[in-house]
Amino acid sequence: MSFERDLIRFPEAVDTEDYVIATYYLETPMDLYRAANAFAAEQSTGTWQRVGYETDEVREKHGIKVLGIYPLPYEPQGPNLPTGTKMTEFGAGSGKINAAVLRLAFPHINFGPKIPNLLTAVAGNLYEMGAFTAIKLIDLEFPKSFLKDFTGPRFGIKGTRELVGVHGRPLVGAIIKPCVGISAKQMAELAYQGAKGGLDFIKDDELIADTSYNSMKERVKAVTQALKHAEEETGEKTMYAFNITDRMDRIRDLHDIVVEGGGICVMINAATAGLEAMRELAEYTKVPIHCHRDFAPMWARSPYLGISFSCLTKLFRLCGADQTHCGAISGKLYETDEEVLGNMRACVHGFGNIGETMPVSSGGQWAAKTPINKRKIGHLDFIHLSGGGIYAHPGGAEAGARSVRDAWDATLKDIPLEEYANDHPALKQAMEHFGKPVY
Amino acid sequence: MSFERDLIRFPEAVDTEDYVIATYYLETPMDLYRAANAFAAEQSTGTWQRVGYETDEVREKHGIKVLGIYPLPYEPQGPNLPTGTKMTEFGAGSGKINAAVLRLAFPHINFGPKIPNLLTAVAGNLYEMGAFTAIKLIDLEFPKSFLKDFTGPRFGIKGTRELVGVHGRPLVGAIIKPCVGISAKQMAELAYQGAKGGLDFIKDDELIADTSYNSMKERVKAVTQALKHAEEETGEKTMYAFNITDRMDRIRDLHDIVVEGGGICVMINAATAGLEAMRELAEYTKVPIHCHRDFAPMWARSPYLGISFSCLTKLFRLCGADQTHCGAISGKLYETDEEVLGNMRACVHGFGNIGETMPVSSGGQWAAKTPINKRKIGHLDFIHLSGGGIYAHPGGAEAGARSVRDAWDATLKDIPLEEYANDHPALKQAMEHFGKPVY
Repeated sequence: MSFERDLIRFPEAVDTEDYVIATYYLETPMDLYRAANAFAAEQSTGTWQRVGYETDEVREKHGIKVLGIYPLPYEPQGPNLPTGTKMTEFGAGSGKINAAVLRLAFPHINFGPKIPNLLTAVAGNLYEMGAFTAIKLIDLEFPKSFLKDFTGPRFGIKGTRELVGVHGRPLVGAIIKPCVGISAKQMAELAYQGAKGGLDFIKDDELIADTSYNSMKERVKAVTQALKHAEEETGEKTMYAFNITDRMDRIRDLHDIVVEGGGICVMINAATAGLEAMRELAEYTKVPIHCHRDFAPMWARSPYLGISFSCLTKLFRLCGADQTHCGAISGKLYETDEEVLGNMRACVHGFGNIGETMPVSSGGQWAAKTPINKRKIGHLDFIHLSGGGIYAHPGGAEAGARSVRDAWDATLKDIPLEEYANDHPALKQAMEHFGKPVY
Repeated sequence: MSFERDLIRFPEAVDTEDYVIATYYLETPMDLYRAANAFAAEQSTGTWQRVGYETDEVREKHGIKVLGIYPLPYEPQGPNLPTGTKMTEFGAGSGKINAAVLRLAFPHINFGPKIPNLLTAVAGNLYEMGAFTAIKLIDLEFPKSFLKDFTGPRFGIKGTRELVGVHGRPLVGAIIKPCVGISAKQMAELAYQGAKGGLDFIKDDELIADTSYNSMKERVKAVTQALKHAEEETGEKTMYAFNITDRMDRIRDLHDIVVEGGGICVMINAATAGLEAMRELAEYTKVPIHCHRDFAPMWARSPYLGISFSCLTKLFRLCGADQTHCGAISGKLYETDEEVLGNMRACVHGFGNIGETMPVSSGGQWAAKTPINKRKIGHLDFIHLSGGGIYAHPGGAEAGARSVRDAWDATLKDIPLEEYANDHPALKQAMEHFGKPVY
């Protein structure tokens, strides 16, 4: 490979307005310089053989540029991904595997402001190259010229808070349980009980959407009526996220059913419906979008393959998520609290014209996890979401909701929960049932 | 956990028409019986706490049933996926990790015949449970009552062959290279050269779709004209797969542009656009769908996480792929030939009312890989697809295409390529440039 024709540039040599910059963690038995060039060629103008029309001009305008190759100071002890039968063919006589961080600039003229085509470029065929024994996309950076075509979150933290009138504390939320199998009327009853107990936010489980035994039409009607009754009694509003994940050609219809029925939030399983489906919903929606992350752990959980969750969170935000699941603080999921915090930070960091999304802490939550959520997250702009922690409270859903509201009241006043529980029976009962506070 | 209330059944105890059956490979420090029940509860009616409306009746109708727990005779030497901070909390005092195959039956009344909702059920939150240190979906089985709502491939092998009039041999195909950066006119010229050399099939690279510098309208017009000219000269038809991967709300428009312009095949990047997007295209399309698999390796490549590629291939077929990328025989990708063959078998095995999809062997292909493709695949109903192997042929694209057609002629007559090359200069030149035949 001649130096005149390679694709390596210092960042100062490219007009960053023309590029989406992707950062990868990579392991390969190839020489890193060769690997970076092979990588760049595979995903832009070339293939394993240079071809006719691939002129220097085409390479310059449409070729991926390698902006950085950063070898890392340790050596993987073997391939961390299957490589086919071809480990011997990578010209790695020594058998040594190199680990590196790679920064690549993708000309966005190649794909335009469309998520499927962006993903094909930055996370396409590269992922099946036998020569890459680990490959993980750990960041994406977008220029203004690309971001301008995305609405981003149109409600975000501010819009969500305004709709429920809650300020100065986290939103207390619940997932209706059981997840599936109950009627619209039963769900409405559970929503009512939770709202009576002080829930700011309730959502469908990601496992239920518009079904034959509990349709969106019935559910919107029953739930909004129930929440209206609760509001008349408590004076507090509750936002309900209706899961409109469905066939592409049904998503807008379901959105309309929610909005026309008085609903103020829709939910989408962004990874299974597709990020682009959420993005187009964001262009259309009249209410905030609650973004569930199920299926995405398949993209993110391996340290050696896929996309990091903080990068995915950035993509969710780009595609208009107003509220985004970030994993669980002190929960039951695979991430450390530090990783969850990384996702939460990606919800609110400055991001050009793209607004903030409200982080959601969810998974194994209940009342007495409020102190650790407050301490670790370090701010109050999030939704603290429980499922069984509210709906399996021994005193029922109302007591379950009340226990979490009580716990937040105590936590925000820095009163130990054990002390506060003495004259707050719902909280006391929760701690007797679920366990000790987590500080 | 009492035996009366658990979710384990022998398969004979459930009406299989009501269920989609999923088979997983699983590793966990939990007791397998507890893990299977936790798994089933998490993805259906329950959560980590059993709740009010979760009656036995609801559990019976809507609960996942565990049909089989098969412990495997080896012990993983540590967690193969990150687990958060909670390895000690799984009740695995011994520290031993269990490996097993698990068969679970999901009541499809919970999600209906919709891919996003199906994926959320079978590959949703389970994948982020810290207690599962490996989880891979290795099969899905569908009842007639679920399949009836899917068209499947409407053209498949038979329809594809009829449109180009090629029988008794694999279709010889090419991917236009360079992938991106050239004009519609240049692509048409490259298509013309390839068709003159005998290509049955040509496709856009997955990296190019409808772009500002080479629009679908221009490309369809230029390419179909060029292929018409070639057909007048050769008497042979060539199918061109135009990549209509785009925003959801543009896919049908682009399909119409292709069909109205005389195109006879559309292509979609199924994993980035979304399987449901392809499924809805399959309900609408007037021409075969060429299914590209980029991005899907992110779901499939880890042995410890995701979905197996043969299971994915089955899903592609369910969603209407008429031609499906299966990896490369003797190629440059991460899979062994045996795994590629597993994908190819999943294209044609009996599958209820769902038709066959034509397998595609692609990745590092060129003329003299014909013998190994024939020998390993064992039948001729596939597309043998080359990129650089045709477009980087030193004699140009026409000679590149000719070299692969020549190679197939020789291979089907069992003539060694070295011998056949003596009076077939394009094949000779290919072997001088790319290397030795692979038998």
